[in-house]
Amino acid sequence: MKSIKDPFLFAVKEYRDSNGIIGIVEDSEIPMAIRRVFWLTEVPDNTMRGGHAHHQSQQVLICFQGEIMVHLEDLTGKGYDYCLKPQGQALYIPPLVWGEYTFHKSAQAICLASDLFDEDDYVRDYQVFKSLQHANQLS
Amino acid sequence: MKSIKDPFLFAVKEYRDSNGIIGIVEDSEIPMAIRRVFWLTEVPDNTMRGGHAHHQSQQVLICFQGEIMVHLEDLTGKGYDYCLKPQGQALYIPPLVWGEYTFHKSAQAICLASDLFDEDDYVRDYQVFKSLQHANQLS
Repeated sequence: MKSIKDPFLFAVKEYRDSNGIIGIVEDSEIPMAIRRVFWLTEVPDNTMRGGHAHHQSQQVLICFQGEIMVHLEDLTGKGYDYCLKPQGQALYIPPLVWGEYTFHKSAQAICLASDLFDEDDYVRDYQVFKSLQHANQLS
Repeated sequence: MKSIKDPFLFAVKEYRDSNGIIGIVEDSEIPMAIRRVFWLTEVPDNTMRGGHAHHQSQQVLICFQGEIMVHLEDLTGKGYDYCLKPQGQALYIPPLVWGEYTFHKSAQAICLASDLFDEDDYVRDYQVFKSLQHANQLS
């Protein structure tokens, strides 16, 4: 029950010209397959989304409009904070990391997930996550 | 050198509430792996993007803002036209299909691709595509 990987930011290939902007992520750049893709739009400013961890699923988060304040916490209790913007970066989020994502400035996001949806993979109760932290610290 | 699959629209799972909209595609819903994800933003209205076919790569196109007029043409010369909007649909595009995508109303799109980027996979010259059509019709 240890989180063996840390979150990390990585550069996203981006091509800009007079016909618009293309951003690209390939699975060869990330330590996971891409089994599921979801996108978040029309999120009211100052809304906090997330508020869960995953037992198995890894994710990559890309903010392509606006700004997303990200707060992560891993099984050791270590916190990570990021301000994601459309600036050619994406955030890799390993399993067993609690994540809170607050949307600002009409933020829009794409999330790549390593696994198909499975409700049993979610840890939605922060106290349950804290108990996993506690068990991890004892192990 | 035959296109064995036709393009098709399919329903995208979408969840709307007061915290925004989530749209989701999983690889279990489509006849391809997701090896590459790209997104198109800040495309000026009336811009035509695409203008190529792929030898191997399959794609799924999702319009999550604005409107995209899609014109496809397969190896038999058959044309397909779609108006993609954020209405819970995605378009599957098989290989060896010429595609032209005209962006309107500040359109934004996500594209899922079955393969990593490979310039050799692109057919960027319409006359070359027509010669593939001709060869296909003779075969």
